[in-house]
Amino acid sequence: MKVAKSEFGLIEWIRRQRRERAEGVITDIGDDMAVLETGGRTVLITTDMLMDGVHFDLQQVTPEQAGYKAMVCSLSDCAAMAAVPWVAVVAAALPKEWSMAAAQRLYGGLEKAAVEYQCPIVGGDTTSWDKPLAVDVTMLARPGKGKPVLRSGARVGDAILVTGELGGSLGGRHVTFSPRVTEAQLLAELVELHAMIDISDGLSRDMDHICQESKVAAELEAEGIPISKAGRESTKPLEAALHDGEDFELLFCVDGKEAEKLRQEWPKRSDVRLSRIGRIVAAQEDQRLFLRASDGTMEPLMVKGWEHFRE
Amino acid sequence: MKVAKSEFGLIEWIRRQRRERAEGVITDIGDDMAVLETGGRTVLITTDMLMDGVHFDLQQVTPEQAGYKAMVCSLSDCAAMAAVPWVAVVAAALPKEWSMAAAQRLYGGLEKAAVEYQCPIVGGDTTSWDKPLAVDVTMLARPGKGKPVLRSGARVGDAILVTGELGGSLGGRHVTFSPRVTEAQLLAELVELHAMIDISDGLSRDMDHICQESKVAAELEAEGIPISKAGRESTKPLEAALHDGEDFELLFCVDGKEAEKLRQEWPKRSDVRLSRIGRIVAAQEDQRLFLRASDGTMEPLMVKGWEHFRE
Repeated sequence: MKVAKSEFGLIEWIRRQRRERAEGVITDIGDDMAVLETGGRTVLITTDMLMDGVHFDLQQVTPEQAGYKAMVCSLSDCAAMAAVPWVAVVAAALPKEWSMAAAQRLYGGLEKAAVEYQCPIVGGDTTSWDKPLAVDVTMLARPGKGKPVLRSGARVGDAILVTGELGGSLGGRHVTFSPRVTEAQLLAELVELHAMIDISDGLSRDMDHICQESKVAAELEAEGIPISKAGRESTKPLEAALHDGEDFELLFCVDGKEAEKLRQEWPKRSDVRLSRIGRIVAAQEDQRLFLRASDGTMEPLMVKGWEHFRE
Repeated sequence: MKVAKSEFGLIEWIRRQRRERAEGVITDIGDDMAVLETGGRTVLITTDMLMDGVHFDLQQVTPEQAGYKAMVCSLSDCAAMAAVPWVAVVAAALPKEWSMAAAQRLYGGLEKAAVEYQCPIVGGDTTSWDKPLAVDVTMLARPGKGKPVLRSGARVGDAILVTGELGGSLGGRHVTFSPRVTEAQLLAELVELHAMIDISDGLSRDMDHICQESKVAAELEAEGIPISKAGRESTKPLEAALHDGEDFELLFCVDGKEAEKLRQEWPKRSDVRLSRIGRIVAAQEDQRLFLRASDGTMEPLMVKGWEHFRE
């Protein structure tokens, strides 16, 4: 669920329409998932619409890959909340010219991710039109180890960390990535997570989301940012890691002592790379992101990356 | 959620893929909503994707009306389960050429229904592309008076009833209709509902869905079927009422005694028309629907109406 990531004017307008929060709604627009409560039970919900030509290109990827990506994007939202995926429903607008076999391949890809991450598809809606494929996955999750982790809990002094490596995902990884569901549970087991997001729009924009929701600023260290092989092969590797988007890695904030604990404990428990890339500082006027270059100079960092709807 | 309504080959294929039902999943594919349980609490979920040119035509309806329809279609699914709408999430693929004002009008229509039926929109996903509008509403509901009513509970001897009047909805009512949320709660309060569905695909097809899921057959009485003004103005009024679709009225089955109770009690409690239109009989070989014409002859009734995806 990316409601706060982009289309800023529209989303801010939608947020302003909000009346008082309804019964059972703990947090709504502005995080990776909305957090709901019924009879003392917490349920989280996210929805993501993926379209051919925007989120994938069916001339370059298979229907299975498109279906797989639709599921893992929502699974990544569950990871971002440190929540455990529960069930999904899928709505698809299929191109009229598709054969039954093509439709089955799309669902095969969805089911593959559903099985891998134990998140069964329990319903849906299938229609067709003479336009490209649009597929929407709505996912419910439940709390795992610890409470849902919001974007709004970062504190001044926190260390900023990221899983995996960033940049160049659109070269191929964006349809094959592993959502960090297990890693999020392991993090929640080891440390107290103050704030977390999955990097879908790019490190700069998603860091900015945390800062905006937490009312803080962030100083990133260029030297600390882990750049993927695809990113290193691009013309501007650091730019790729900062802004490319669709990495689907976890970006999170913890107390300095917890960061030190992770430095020691994490490698014993996981093969996934974990990098400390900066720290949370007090909110600054008009500027939420700063980058320390390898020569030691600190400069404001511009937010770039994905914004879906702009007038 | 219309997974069992159409695209029969595809849906049957998806159902065959099912492994054992997951923990907390009470019913899944094959009803208006999936029924889930967590910690003793029941939650229902439905998703519906509506597209410009298929479910509405933005050359004839406003963005507000499109948004309103997207919400009330899902609200009608809640009514079909006799469930109480809780929250919704909305994913939209907006046409790139849309102004911010057009996007706000779409959300205005969604919000209008959200407020009217007390089902707040708690999140979503907004993207854009150079294609027509696609908007998906996923809704959660909770049980109201009584358990969720499935399609599968119709029994031989049951009376078949329908709210409102049928036919000709595409002339305009399909974007302005009132989902029968209140009426469903009143029905659940007054009688024991054996099976229920909302008429989205047309009376014949939706009656067939109940028969298929309940493993029974149905005899409808042509004389008893309430035909709307728009239906009466069409060239074949009875055909319109039987097959047009998008009526979003409730079609349900109750014991004969309960039907009699409704005949007496309902008019004291509601202004919405209620009609007894037939009875459930034992499953027949190959034919689930029969229609008694006004001359008293009983003939097999063909299923027509909406089927979205056909190879």
